[in-house]
This record gives sequence, structure tokens and C-alpha cells, in this order.
Amino acid sequence: MILIKLARRFCVLNENQYSKVSAAFLDKIAEQCEELECFEDVELSDGVVTLKCKEEKTYIINKQSPNKQIWLSSPISGPKRYDFVNNGWVNATDGHKLIDLLSKELSSIYKQEIKLQD
Amino acid sequence: MILIKLARRFCVLNENQYSKVSAAFLDKIAEQCEELECFEDVELSDGVVTLKCKEEKTYIINKQSPNKQIWLSSPISGPKRYDFVNNGWVNATDGHKLIDLLSKELSSIYKQEIKLQD
Repeated sequence: MILIKLARRFCVLNENQYSKVSAAFLDKIAEQCEELECFEDVELSDGVVTLKCKEEKTYIINKQSPNKQIWLSSPISGPKRYDFVNNGWVNATDGHKLIDLLSKELSSIYKQEIKLQD
Repeated sequence: MILIKLARRFCVLNENQYSKVSAAFLDKIAEQCEELECFEDVELSDGVVTLKCKEEKTYIINKQSPNKQIWLSSPISGPKRYDFVNNGWVNATDGHKLIDLLSKELSSIYKQEIKLQD
């Protein structure tokens, strides 16, 4: 437990930790999106979440195990990569959190506030 | 038929044409990869091809209908976007074809020549 806490803070996940935290994150996203009931389809299959939104906009969120990242394909802002830092999935380029960007873009698509939790 | 040929040459796919050529492309990739029998898993589901390679390397190739593109997530070279130009899916940044990059990277992973057709 202490090791996991340290790993989270300093972003040195081992493979087992990466596997657990990434799977939990994808599960939680898919679950919340299912509950929102505004998507055409929500699918979680073997480390890949596919969110089909209205207007044929498709988000894909997937594990990239070799570099211990999660990648997002956004139909609005493009493809992005995230590392696990301080208990969240954070973009290396500008430091935004995946969950914040996704919440913001979904809110824009559906014209209502959507606030996903990580 | 003439319209499709023109659209292919000049890259002005309408939604219907995009839908057909992108689906055919993803089908063909998935089919060829299945036949290779070297992947941990090959999945084609609703516009998303997931190729699980050895060493936990995962490729994702997916439609992005709003901008009539196909996107590739490569565990080796990162995320990339492709437009349909001259009958192939071509990267806007440096003009390489998706099929060529994928063939090259898979050949490198499996240490044998893999030559996919589009």
C-alpha cells in the first residue's frame, strides 16, 4: 500500500500497478458514461473504451502498456497521451488531466455540464 | 462508380463514400491480420480495429467520421491521422501511407517481413 502511494506520487508504476490503475480508470469512465445515458454506444473491451457520441463523434481511450500510458483519441481536439502522475492521468505537453478535457468536450457536445470523476 | 473514382482522386469523399471506403479498409486490415496468426488478438468492432501484438504492444485503428479520417494509435510511433488521398489513407504531415507504416512496424516487432495490402 505504501509502495502504491509512493508510485502514484512519483509516477514510477511497475507493470502490475499500471495494469491495476489503468483498468480501474477505464472501468470508471465506461461506468459513468453508461450511467449518463446520452451516448449512442459505450463499449469497454480489453483495455479500450469506445464512446460513440451524437453527430458520429467517437472517443477512444486505450491503454498503451509498453509505455504505461493511456491514450485518448478525441474527435474535437485530436490524439493525446497521458501519464499517471499524482493519482491522475496527466498530459505531458500541457499538464491537463484526461478526465477534465473529456468532461469539458462532452459538456460542449451535449450542451450540458458533464463532470466525470477519476 | 465514376463519382467514387473522382472522389478518390480528389479526396472529396461524401459521408456515404467515406463510410464505405473506411469500413472496407478496416475490414481488410483485420482480415489480413487474422490470417497472419501472429497476434494475441485481432478485433474489429464498430469502426475500431484493435491489434494486440506480443510484448503488450497494442495498435488501434479507428474511423473518425466527423473529419472523414482514419486514426492510428501506434505503440511505437505514436498517434497519427490519415486522409483518403489517391485511393489510400495518407498522413497529412509527411505523406506516408498508413498501410506502409503499419507493415513496417509489424515487421519490426515480429522480425519478419509483413506486407499488408490496402
